[in-house]
Amino acid sequence: MRPGIDVECREVGLRDGLQIQQVFFATEGKIAWLTAEAAAGMPEIEVCSFVPPKLLPQFADNQEVVAAALAIDGAFISALAPNLKGAQNAFKAGIHKLNYVTSVSESHNMANVRRTVDESVADFERIVAARNEASGDTLLAVGLSTALGCTIEGPVALDAVLKLAERFVAAGADEISVADTVGYANPVQVKEMFNAVIGEFGGRVAVAAHFHDTRGLGLANVFAALEAGCTRFDASLAGLGGCPFAPHATGNIVMDDLVFLLEGAGLKTGVDLDALVKIRDIITANLPDEPLNGMYAKAGPPKGFVPASKAA
Amino acid sequence: MRPGIDVECREVGLRDGLQIQQVFFATEGKIAWLTAEAAAGMPEIEVCSFVPPKLLPQFADNQEVVAAALAIDGAFISALAPNLKGAQNAFKAGIHKLNYVTSVSESHNMANVRRTVDESVADFERIVAARNEASGDTLLAVGLSTALGCTIEGPVALDAVLKLAERFVAAGADEISVADTVGYANPVQVKEMFNAVIGEFGGRVAVAAHFHDTRGLGLANVFAALEAGCTRFDASLAGLGGCPFAPHATGNIVMDDLVFLLEGAGLKTGVDLDALVKIRDIITANLPDEPLNGMYAKAGPPKGFVPASKAA
Repeated sequence: MRPGIDVECREVGLRDGLQIQQVFFATEGKIAWLTAEAAAGMPEIEVCSFVPPKLLPQFADNQEVVAAALAIDGAFISALAPNLKGAQNAFKAGIHKLNYVTSVSESHNMANVRRTVDESVADFERIVAARNEASGDTLLAVGLSTALGCTIEGPVALDAVLKLAERFVAAGADEISVADTVGYANPVQVKEMFNAVIGEFGGRVAVAAHFHDTRGLGLANVFAALEAGCTRFDASLAGLGGCPFAPHATGNIVMDDLVFLLEGAGLKTGVDLDALVKIRDIITANLPDEPLNGMYAKAGPPKGFVPASKAA
Repeated sequence: MRPGIDVECREVGLRDGLQIQQVFFATEGKIAWLTAEAAAGMPEIEVCSFVPPKLLPQFADNQEVVAAALAIDGAFISALAPNLKGAQNAFKAGIHKLNYVTSVSESHNMANVRRTVDESVADFERIVAARNEASGDTLLAVGLSTALGCTIEGPVALDAVLKLAERFVAAGADEISVADTVGYANPVQVKEMFNAVIGEFGGRVAVAAHFHDTRGLGLANVFAALEAGCTRFDASLAGLGGCPFAPHATGNIVMDDLVFLLEGAGLKTGVDLDALVKIRDIITANLPDEPLNGMYAKAGPPKGFVPASKAA
């Protein structure tokens, strides 16, 4: 945790938000977005995915984007890599943190990254070794997808999440992110999950939450995780991301609404909410046909609202 | 609380949702809506407001709507009245529960119902007397608007809410509804508020929550109130209501998403979620230009989802 803040937000719009975008988001637009968000005080920005350009042309410019991001004084920059090859490229680029993903459910992991969960764990062990050789100080975060339910297998047992988390922690993960990428989670389930994960691993690694708002419960799940002691949250500016199987449904939770929730709750995020909302214009300029999500940006602040970060 | 359920939802779309609608929602449409929702198991339906037709033409058919609602076997029907005259008409119509509203903040009460808070309390005392004379068994609920913040005065003190609630409970209210009609509330504030209100009055009257989703925190606030022990929630099917000062912003929280949250959390509402979602078509048929809110209806249930009311 950075000094002076209570909750650490991570902007994932440039990666999770853009990866399903058919329209290429111009490189200078990406750099303008991440530069503005770093200036607004965002503690961590995930700027791209290290995947072959023919697989995801959206990230063909990842070298240029990462270089620009790393040039920003004080910014903390992460990127996703789905495998060792991507991780090696990410280490070479010099990112501060690598985000790696595995599904808790076997069939989803096979569909998503075409390998068994065992193979994903083994690949992570190779990534740890590569990190130790290449750049000893790059942090390694592991996102556990389908931790709160799977589109193929349905409900996922809490115990399966704990067991898989244990394997990654033992292998050397610095952070475990419990992810509901399909918007299945319920706040009661979330509170139980984070109580268990933080109880088990909170003293050893950082624990983060990654929620989608597909069924409207994203911010309720944030509050539930907060109640369980979670202090790290992913979100996407303007909720960029959508959801391929649910037209018009939000993907990631909306960063601007998340910061409004936290700052209103007296929790310092270090993020300037007014400045954050203005960055939505950069998305509009680069993706003019993309409808933006987010209620705070439409309604404005409550009368007399003082964000925690600006309170005396 | 009805037997067999854990949380009691109240549909307010026919009143709070329609009151700002410029288009007249056809009487037979209103009756179709409330009939279908009663059949889906909704524990309480607020069907109209007893106000002069020249003030709110939308409710010119309130006699007919109430008569049709009361003819439904097992339905529990309420209506809003802003003053003694409206309450007398409501009692004459035979409703089961009367919903009366006062703002905690003086200037908002003056703007909304053109009287001081003292005058509102005095009028409620006359309403209690009229109820005792007219129909001893009509329940009286009092909604405390601006309890979590005011568009004119800004932040509202918790103590002011408790003091005003005390006056209404002493005057004979059966239910106190803590209302955030402007979507200002934050879940941390909500939990503190409901802990205090339920702690003070929970043993004497029913305590309900009325949230709007204007800034995206409506369902997070529901979970916060649940955590404090609140088991009564207002919502509007498809979030009908909008917000006059924030175009495209949701008004009331979405009933379908609320029921999804509760049933997913293992709390029985007695409401059939599939049947509820289908009733959205009645709104579309009667208000074809009105965009409907609600994420669950767009995304559908999670794979393997079993609502608490249908669990073995």
